Amino acid sequence: MPGSLHSAERAQLVRDFLRQQELRAWIAWRPDELIMLSGYATFWGASVLLYLADSDPVLFIPVLEPRDHIPAGLIVREYPWGDLKCSDPFAVLTEGVRSETKKAGVAPGQVGMLRSAARTSLPIQAAEQIPLPESFCETFSALAAQPDPKKENAFLNLYLQKTPEEVRAIRLANHVAGIGVQSFRDSVSPSISEAEVAAAVETAIQKQIGQDGIFYARGWAMVQSGPNSADSGRFNRSSGRRLQNGDLVVLELATCVNGYWSDLTRMEAVGELKPQLAELLRVVSEGQQAAIAMVQPGVAAGEVDAAARDVIARHGLSEYFTHHTGHHVGFRYHDPGFGLMPGRTEKLAPGMVVTIEPGAYVPEYGGGARIEDDVLVTDSGNEILSRESRTAVS
Amino acid sequence: MPGSLHSAERAQLVRDFLRQQELRAWIAWRPDELIMLSGYATFWGASVLLYLADSDPVLFIPVLEPRDHIPAGLIVREYPWGDLKCSDPFAVLTEGVRSETKKAGVAPGQVGMLRSAARTSLPIQAAEQIPLPESFCETFSALAAQPDPKKENAFLNLYLQKTPEEVRAIRLANHVAGIGVQSFRDSVSPSISEAEVAAAVETAIQKQIGQDGIFYARGWAMVQSGPNSADSGRFNRSSGRRLQNGDLVVLELATCVNGYWSDLTRMEAVGELKPQLAELLRVVSEGQQAAIAMVQPGVAAGEVDAAARDVIARHGLSEYFTHHTGHHVGFRYHDPGFGLMPGRTEKLAPGMVVTIEPGAYVPEYGGGARIEDDVLVTDSGNEILSRESRTAVS
Repeated sequence: MPGSLHSAERAQLVRDFLRQQELRAWIAWRPDELIMLSGYATFWGASVLLYLADSDPVLFIPVLEPRDHIPAGLIVREYPWGDLKCSDPFAVLTEGVRSETKKAGVAPGQVGMLRSAARTSLPIQAAEQIPLPESFCETFSALAAQPDPKKENAFLNLYLQKTPEEVRAIRLANHVAGIGVQSFRDSVSPSISEAEVAAAVETAIQKQIGQDGIFYARGWAMVQSGPNSADSGRFNRSSGRRLQNGDLVVLELATCVNGYWSDLTRMEAVGELKPQLAELLRVVSEGQQAAIAMVQPGVAAGEVDAAARDVIARHGLSEYFTHHTGHHVGFRYHDPGFGLMPGRTEKLAPGMVVTIEPGAYVPEYGGGARIEDDVLVTDSGNEILSRESRTAVS
Repeated sequence: MPGSLHSAERAQLVRDFLRQQELRAWIAWRPDELIMLSGYATFWGASVLLYLADSDPVLFIPVLEPRDHIPAGLIVREYPWGDLKCSDPFAVLTEGVRSETKKAGVAPGQVGMLRSAARTSLPIQAAEQIPLPESFCETFSALAAQPDPKKENAFLNLYLQKTPEEVRAIRLANHVAGIGVQSFRDSVSPSISEAEVAAAVETAIQKQIGQDGIFYARGWAMVQSGPNSADSGRFNRSSGRRLQNGDLVVLELATCVNGYWSDLTRMEAVGELKPQLAELLRVVSEGQQAAIAMVQPGVAAGEVDAAARDVIARHGLSEYFTHHTGHHVGFRYHDPGFGLMPGRTEKLAPGMVVTIEPGAYVPEYGGGARIEDDVLVTDSGNEILSRESRTAVS
């Protein structure tokens, strides 16, 4: 329902941030900034949100943008992107933002913004990177203060804590992802190709559009089987390889629903596993459970990582667990913020949502395994948001 | 086959460009730059290609990158992105590029680069925007000359002409897209949802992985039916709406195969169309055929546009054709370069590949239509690269 995600809690967090940083406005344009600040899922990725400390946020959208899912509480202004008669739509956009900041009595030195879209989420039109032009950051920089790493980091900290409405949206993304996982479990069998399994998962996800207030659902499923699963700690890419009895099969799955993200990894076996591979899967599963058991307020990120790493080391597989144990998730496939990795001292707090995803990849065994869930830190412990797609092992 | 796409023709074009612009190197990092310069489809989107005027290009890849499809003829250097033990992989990358330019005796003032990823293509890991960090352009800017719009435009002109090897790759993308279109034609029937049709198209495309040297194939299918088709000139998004008899159905389809792109639009009808909608489809089809007939060397972009626009105007639908007639395509969903739109005087030349995609969207009729093909300019006229997925009408 339009507007239902633009919560009072989030507005309070943003206004507190602005006050603490002595800012009176923020110019947001990255797709995940827009979701985080306002619950608005940009279609074209060409929208700009002027978030003001003392009045309602103003959303600038291209005239081509669909308007049926813009949250309530945003003042909407159109600019003529996609209009054949306008040769410089971004000049109109810039002038609009300038005019609104001026009207609000805000000086450029009181306006913050981020200047890079690196690793941010995709808009609903997900077949290319966002279209804000070469000169965008330079042009907008004139409307904002000089880059200030302290303020930028403080802004990125806004991603860490999810409000109850946002948790509901991330829960829905995990529910839809779980429907994809069911399709994975149903598809895995000898002679189907990795790419065919991936297509089945993505289909199950996309078909949810139209259900339960879902206006957008897309999955990116990456399936690796047998020897390919041993690469799944380095990259995730479905090939034409056909599954065989005895394979371990990894599903890495990014899912976006209405602009909110789930990030899961699930495992299946084709027929009977060799003892080494069965043991590998058990060890990773035990490591993941140990890490999840550590997730609660006040625990340091490095302690959660160590819980998984210790289990895997105890079974002699230490060198095969080559990556972090987890990261924040929800506003994008990989949210910014501290990793759950060795030595990190930042503490978990209620409202955080993190992935827990230890793995071990052993070419000599002919396989690799990772299990990944999205876990909410609650007041008293944690809740696995992706629990419906878990089995006892994976 | 690795290396087969890194052609002598392309190398000659790039070296001619460097000489004419008095540059001795180019730092490329956007996914479509990498494809265009070397035929290399980046997996993570974290690779940098140092293209040198006087020696072999050097490709910097993260240690996590798959190496099975890196074209021959590139010197490959790894950097430790994704390695838990390295806290600043991009510093290692930067130092590597600096060292190679120095070794080649090239000064920063002789190095060109583009500084924005806006609207560029996605890497194979297509679930987020590319990961080069906030500071990437600033850091690399120290290795390159000051931004120079004249040189940047000259570089973008390299996208316009496709070599025979590149045309073969774009033809393959259109062949795979055509398999998706067949699935669209087979799926359209009463009561299936738009999203379900879109999922069927994307599945057909992804299943081609493993065939004919295809290591990567992904489609982004967007289906709009009945009244939703009237929005298809503004945006393309599949909803949960179920198809009904009498609907016009639009398929907008982006397809990437091994890093090369096809961009198509196809139409279907569910049962019998009302006379107005049938006429709308006929007019758009006639307009598209008129524009395609104009595609040949020496014809101005505006003349191709006018051919379609005149047909649509003659039938009184002028105001409903709200966008350009086409754009360049192949290295990304929308290549840079001149549009086929009113008033553009740039001339078509052999080796260019352009979309021809007039449309008309008439809410009063309850529908909209667009037909889009990818057309190669040949020495004597043109060739429709997407012809296998055309019918007599659409």
